Amino acid sequence: MPYKIKETEGFTSQIGHLVSQMDYARKTTLNAVHGLTTAELDFLPAGDANSIGALLLHIAAIEKGFQIETFDGRRPNEQEMAEWGAAYDLGDKGRQQIKGHPLEFYMTKLEEVRKQTLLEFSNRSDEWLYENRLWGSHPSNNYFIWFHMFEDEINHRGQIRIIRKMLPQ
Amino acid sequence: MPYKIKETEGFTSQIGHLVSQMDYARKTTLNAVHGLTTAELDFLPAGDANSIGALLLHIAAIEKGFQIETFDGRRPNEQEMAEWGAAYDLGDKGRQQIKGHPLEFYMTKLEEVRKQTLLEFSNRSDEWLYENRLWGSHPSNNYFIWFHMFEDEINHRGQIRIIRKMLPQ
Repeated sequence: MPYKIKETEGFTSQIGHLVSQMDYARKTTLNAVHGLTTAELDFLPAGDANSIGALLLHIAAIEKGFQIETFDGRRPNEQEMAEWGAAYDLGDKGRQQIKGHPLEFYMTKLEEVRKQTLLEFSNRSDEWLYENRLWGSHPSNNYFIWFHMFEDEINHRGQIRIIRKMLPQ
Repeated sequence: MPYKIKETEGFTSQIGHLVSQMDYARKTTLNAVHGLTTAELDFLPAGDANSIGALLLHIAAIEKGFQIETFDGRRPNEQEMAEWGAAYDLGDKGRQQIKGHPLEFYMTKLEEVRKQTLLEFSNRSDEWLYENRLWGSHPSNNYFIWFHMFEDEINHRGQIRIIRKMLPQ
C-alpha cells in the first residue's frame, strides 16, 4: 500500500491531508495490538499504569470527546459521560471499569467512532479547520484539535508497544 | 502560546503546516524530559529496553537520517554511521554506547539537527513535499517521510513518559 500524505478523495484538500495522517496512525495502532487476548489486554504493568485495553478505549474516547466539542460545539452530556468517562480519564476509574473485553470490542468502538468522524469531515470545508477554538486557555483551531487526536493516539501506541513487551510469557 | 496548525512564516503553505506540527511535537518531548539527571537519562527499565537518553538521541538520529535521504538523496556515509548508527538502531549498541551524558547534550543535538531541517525546508516548495519517494518498498512521498519523523518522535515521547514514571524514587 502507498504511504503518502496528500489530498484524500471525499474530503476538501486540507481535511484530506489530516485524514491520511489519521489513517496511518490508526493502522499502526491496530498493528500494535494484533492478536492480543483478553488477559493480555487487561494486563497492568504496574499498580498505577494503564492496560492496553484501557489505552485503546481511551483513544476512542478522545476522538468521541473531540467530536462533541468541535462538531456539536457543546460539553458531553450525562449519558456520554457514563459511557466514556472512565476511558477518557483513565487512572483508577479506568483500571476498575475497563476490563474483560476481547480485542473485537475495542476495535468495534474505534471503528464506530472513526466512521462518524469521517462522515462529519466529509461535510466540512478547509475553512472550518482554521476556525478559532480554545485549547484549555490557549488560542487554538479545529486543525490543532484533530492533529492532537492522532498525536495522542501515537503517544499511546508507543506505550502499548512497551507494555506488550512486558506481558508475562 | 497559541496552539494552531497553520501556515508558518518563512515556509511555503504546506511545509508551514508540517513545521507547526513538528514544533508542537518537539515542545512536548522537551517537556517530558525536563529536569532529568544523567543517571535518570541512563536508567534502563528492563534488560532489553531503551534509556530515555537513547530515545532522545534516536529522535535526533531519525531526523538526521531523513535529512540525508530527502535533502541529499543519498545513503549515510561512514562518518555519519559512526556518529549516529547506535542512536538510529537502538538495541544493544544503543545501550552500550549512549550513556553518561547530561540533558544538555541531548538538547543540543536535537537543536542542531532541527536547525538544519528548518534551513532546508525554507529553501523548498510545497511541490517538493509531494515528490514521490520509496518508503521501504512502498510508494511514498517526502511529506510522509517528514510526517513520520514527528510521528516517530511522539511514539517515543509516549514511551519516555512511561519510563519516567518507572524511575527509582
